[in-house]
Amino acid sequence: MLNSELISFENPVFRCYLGWSAVLVLKIFAAAIYSGLMRFFTSTFANPEDLMSPKLKVKFDDPNVERVRRAHRNDLENILPFFAIGLLYVLTNPSAWLAINLFRAVGIARIVHTIVYAVVVVPQPSRALAFFVALGATVYMALQVIAAAAF
Amino acid sequence: MLNSELISFENPVFRCYLGWSAVLVLKIFAAAIYSGLMRFFTSTFANPEDLMSPKLKVKFDDPNVERVRRAHRNDLENILPFFAIGLLYVLTNPSAWLAINLFRAVGIARIVHTIVYAVVVVPQPSRALAFFVALGATVYMALQVIAAAAF
Amino acid sequence: MLNSELISFENPVFRCYLGWSAVLVLKIFAAAIYSGLMRFFTSTFANPEDLMSPKLKVKFDDPNVERVRRAHRNDLENILPFFAIGLLYVLTNPSAWLAINLFRAVGIARIVHTIVYAVVVVPQPSRALAFFVALGATVYMALQVIAAAAF
Repeated sequence: MLNSELISFENPVFRCYLGWSAVLVLKIFAAAIYSGLMRFFTSTFANPEDLMSPKLKVKFDDPNVERVRRAHRNDLENILPFFAIGLLYVLTNPSAWLAINLFRAVGIARIVHTIVYAVVVVPQPSRALAFFVALGATVYMALQVIAAAAF
Repeated sequence: MLNSELISFENPVFRCYLGWSAVLVLKIFAAAIYSGLMRFFTSTFANPEDLMSPKLKVKFDDPNVERVRRAHRNDLENILPFFAIGLLYVLTNPSAWLAINLFRAVGIARIVHTIVYAVVVVPQPSRALAFFVALGATVYMALQVIAAAAF
Repeated sequence: MLNSELISFENPVFRCYLGWSAVLVLKIFAAAIYSGLMRFFTSTFANPEDLMSPKLKVKFDDPNVERVRRAHRNDLENILPFFAIGLLYVLTNPSAWLAINLFRAVGIARIVHTIVYAVVVVPQPSRALAFFVALGATVYMALQVIAAAAF
């Protein structure tokens, strides 16, 4: 079988990857918009040309802005590798049940991660749990891809 | 139809995605090189092993270096999700005219974004406009992918 | 020929891309885990809810944590674009020998980069060399993709 036949809307695993990837792209952008709004609310602008009033000065240390920026960066560190490895994992023709639940786990865990990190701060280990669920699922996919490439 | 048939150099939408993706990879790397050059010009090195002279000390707050670093990070936040969603959008078999113009919009807007942010600082709303054109086009692609995955 | 036929486990170039991509995903995650461990060892926590003891305060300037974070960010700047362009380069049907060695060069250079940057600090130009080997190989792939898209 050609692996590229798995890239089809009739393959439920590929469709599930497709849907969650697009949702997570929107989630990353939501973090971007949210950090922009937080800059406005707290008048924390990093560039002189962004200052809304001549009385303002550039500012880099607002804790609310920095918190959203950390959540956003954590998305880049974890969701962007998932985009790559998720597609390659689909091409290994995994069990549909397992693959679909792994994609759901990554999608839901990363949305929860942003919420408990930057929207309503929830005490640990909530953020650590969300982080490790998504990380564990993505690591499993990477190991399956390595196994498929090697044998 | 197999969606993978859309992954073909005979498909003008895929070719356009291919070309702009490669140009944007070079654009991200140009920001990396530029931030390295800016470190040299301003003697702003973040690591002791990078110091070119024993008289220098590590430095983290040069405004020119930090500006290029912010532009570079903004690329990661916006261009890297585009790489993933652009390919998935090609697989939804979109209208060629629309898709090609969306890819052009993202490509040109992100190049303009870097120029007005880090090369020749242009007053707002030039950077905001470039940011939202690319963001809007990518969000539209993500919504089309979600619709295709769901129905 | 359909370019999508190149997306096959029988294509050694695609398999090589697959294997190195998965290894580099794990490498990025290793940097994430390592920076988390470094935060514990040095009691450097960026969020109040992460503090392990009421005596601790949030801290942002530990040089060991910051070094791992810089190495991690450098991964995002360089490895994530490789994931996108590597796949597109496979679709241009390159010479197997050249493509496989380029993938190996990126994979090995990025692992070396992390080691000499964040694990055992080795004097320059070791890190610069590792950086430019991976960058050069990825730029070459991007240029080949642009040539394939244009002609």
